[in-house]
Amino acid sequence: MKICGIFLVVSLFSTAFSDETSDPYLLPKPSILQYPSEHNKVGGEEVNLYCTSWRFAAETNNLAPWSTIPAECADYVKDYVMGRSYSTDLERVSEEASIFASSVEFSGDGKDIWVFDIDETLLSNLPYYIDHGFGLELFDHSEFDKWVERGVAPAIAPSLKLYQRVVDLGYKIFLLTGRKESHRLVTVENLINAGFQNWDKLILRSPDELHKMATLYKSEKRDEMVKEGYRIRGNSGDQWSDLLGSSMSQRSFKLPNPMYYIP
Amino acid sequence: MKICGIFLVVSLFSTAFSDETSDPYLLPKPSILQYPSEHNKVGGEEVNLYCTSWRFAAETNNLAPWSTIPAECADYVKDYVMGRSYSTDLERVSEEASIFASSVEFSGDGKDIWVFDIDETLLSNLPYYIDHGFGLELFDHSEFDKWVERGVAPAIAPSLKLYQRVVDLGYKIFLLTGRKESHRLVTVENLINAGFQNWDKLILRSPDELHKMATLYKSEKRDEMVKEGYRIRGNSGDQWSDLLGSSMSQRSFKLPNPMYYIP
Repeated sequence: MKICGIFLVVSLFSTAFSDETSDPYLLPKPSILQYPSEHNKVGGEEVNLYCTSWRFAAETNNLAPWSTIPAECADYVKDYVMGRSYSTDLERVSEEASIFASSVEFSGDGKDIWVFDIDETLLSNLPYYIDHGFGLELFDHSEFDKWVERGVAPAIAPSLKLYQRVVDLGYKIFLLTGRKESHRLVTVENLINAGFQNWDKLILRSPDELHKMATLYKSEKRDEMVKEGYRIRGNSGDQWSDLLGSSMSQRSFKLPNPMYYIP
Repeated sequence: MKICGIFLVVSLFSTAFSDETSDPYLLPKPSILQYPSEHNKVGGEEVNLYCTSWRFAAETNNLAPWSTIPAECADYVKDYVMGRSYSTDLERVSEEASIFASSVEFSGDGKDIWVFDIDETLLSNLPYYIDHGFGLELFDHSEFDKWVERGVAPAIAPSLKLYQRVVDLGYKIFLLTGRKESHRLVTVENLINAGFQNWDKLILRSPDELHKMATLYKSEKRDEMVKEGYRIRGNSGDQWSDLLGSSMSQRSFKLPNPMYYIP
């Protein structure tokens, strides 16, 4: 058993890893989506391996800034977000965050807070991305603004469950979003219609903050919270730029999002 | 198309998510491995969905500290690390890190450094974990020490490739490991036999640091580097405790490791 095991490892690790880099940034980016009607099995398995590895790299923040998903992963990302994998991952994050939220011992001074991002964290823009290639199309600010202004983004159910749990536990809720101040009203209406209530602060980008990197903008806002004496216990976001930087939370919860990247 | 899309989303997001939490920490932890000889297809798909989601949560640092992998994921983790998925993920991280390393503009003062963890980053302990349940068995310090003292851990090939690239580019290499100072000699021998050379510092835990959390120990060591004027450009590690904390690197690279967790 031992000899067999070591043989397997040696064969795995002495394999010459291919020198051909498959750089997704060099791939063509078609503006018209084409979903191949069928993969043959071997091709499908290769694509699945490649795209799963790409997704791991994206979700662990290993990728360089990227603007669109790799063309060959169009089907993969679609299947992921439309199938059970995405919702299973969302449920898991919600459960883990809920376990942690329940375990925190409050000091009773009302200064324990939970920070939530909004898009792809509390509200889902999947209806928009269904019509825009699940991340295969280059992001179109004006088209996306039109979607936001409709105010009909549905709640991400496991996040709503976590949200309610965190409110019930007595945390103060700070919503910290990259959306702009001019979208405050529609964002409030959308959140309420989707079932979110009782937040303490809703922080949006002011006009002079529109061109700041998200990591910096969100760090500055968290710095202010800490300066005001708040303890950031939890932070839920689908982007690493929601979670990393200064004044990081005691525990961060990274929701899945293989469709887009915000630096 | 639009109506169809919205219908799909609504049905996905209005599904009542199950209240049954499946807490892996409450599962039995057998000391004898039993790999079911066959899953029926539906059962196998469910397990795959559950374990993929567990792996996503582990790799994104969403899980509470865990001591063993979930019992029902024993086969899944074994298949992952022994099959092509693990090596594909390792290659991807190596390639992304290499692209970034090449893009950094050096100041020419010899103060640009790259930090590498050792275990499951440069050297693989898979031969040990093959004989110890791939993370299903509770970690046994004395057994693992015996393995380390043999000094035969193989190189992780894509990491060796990155290492050589980073050396060639002119970075100073700092190896920062949780291994103890008494393992210095065997670690040096093991690294050299596995093909690693030309590092500038090898930092191991001194006796008074043995019980520090890894995040704190590694942060303190990085703080010292920064104090000495070094710029930590890249940091490669398989644990978030290698990467998070103070004096974080310009870019971090998280290698996959679904077998164990170090806080």
